[in-house]
Amino acid sequence: MSPQQARRPGEIAVEHPQASDAWLQYIGRIHTPWQRREDCPRQGDLDGPECQIEVFQPWDQALVGLQTTTPLEVLYWLDQSRRDLVLQCPTGRDHPVGTFALRSPVRPNPMGSSVVRLIAIEGPVLRVRGLDCLDGTPLLDLKPAHSAFIRTHSGG
Amino acid sequence: MSPQQARRPGEIAVEHPQASDAWLQYIGRIHTPWQRREDCPRQGDLDGPECQIEVFQPWDQALVGLQTTTPLEVLYWLDQSRRDLVLQCPTGRDHPVGTFALRSPVRPNPMGSSVVRLIAIEGPVLRVRGLDCLDGTPLLDLKPAHSAFIRTHSGG
Repeated sequence: MSPQQARRPGEIAVEHPQASDAWLQYIGRIHTPWQRREDCPRQGDLDGPECQIEVFQPWDQALVGLQTTTPLEVLYWLDQSRRDLVLQCPTGRDHPVGTFALRSPVRPNPMGSSVVRLIAIEGPVLRVRGLDCLDGTPLLDLKPAHSAFIRTHSGG
Repeated sequence: MSPQQARRPGEIAVEHPQASDAWLQYIGRIHTPWQRREDCPRQGDLDGPECQIEVFQPWDQALVGLQTTTPLEVLYWLDQSRRDLVLQCPTGRDHPVGTFALRSPVRPNPMGSSVVRLIAIEGPVLRVRGLDCLDGTPLLDLKPAHSAFIRTHSGG
């Protein structure tokens, strides 16, 4: 979606300074069944369809020690999203809401986060359930989910 | 921490391509009591010390509709972290583990995520509990935490 696209009534866009304070490297790619934003579920379902997370070299080496028993936090880049809205009118709401009060993909730094169930690790490919993003979404990071971390470590 | 720093035995660094696939804009700054990495708690505590999240203009306009009753997900940039380790030896472990099996700040895209309790919204400043990052950490994003989102919307 480009910033040139029409805004809904009440939505407010700001001049995005395009400042590059930090840079990201895509470390993999996410494969899901959803080709268009309107096909994506509103949020991931841990019993939803299986998706694949492909980790690029050399970062596949960083999968050592990952446990399928631990819920996994996935961070990804919503590369189709505009970045300039401060007020948005999500579908199904009749008044605009601030971007930070929503989990909309339209954000100043359009990052998505999901907690997924890790089904299997097959070399550099993770089979997971719980994602809701578009097919082809660039991967930014993987880590044990916070709640799992608490459970794993609070006993010892 | 710079990539030039000594690695611990068993740690493996890779050539980081420094590819700039996407750019980030700092949209605020996080104020915490911790000035050095070794002072930071291992993970945030929802009853821990109060911290402030300062949101820069024009993004403060995007706070409209944020509820103090909703746990908030905070994404931030760990700007002091090296980015090239695929295997790491965290303190207290005697063997190296893959970066993606850890919540260490050292990661290819060094982003931190925390779920915090929002105590008050005072103009562009959020008072929160539950962070564990260094004072001065750049802010990347704010959104209602996933579990809260489920609770809020599952009834309607």
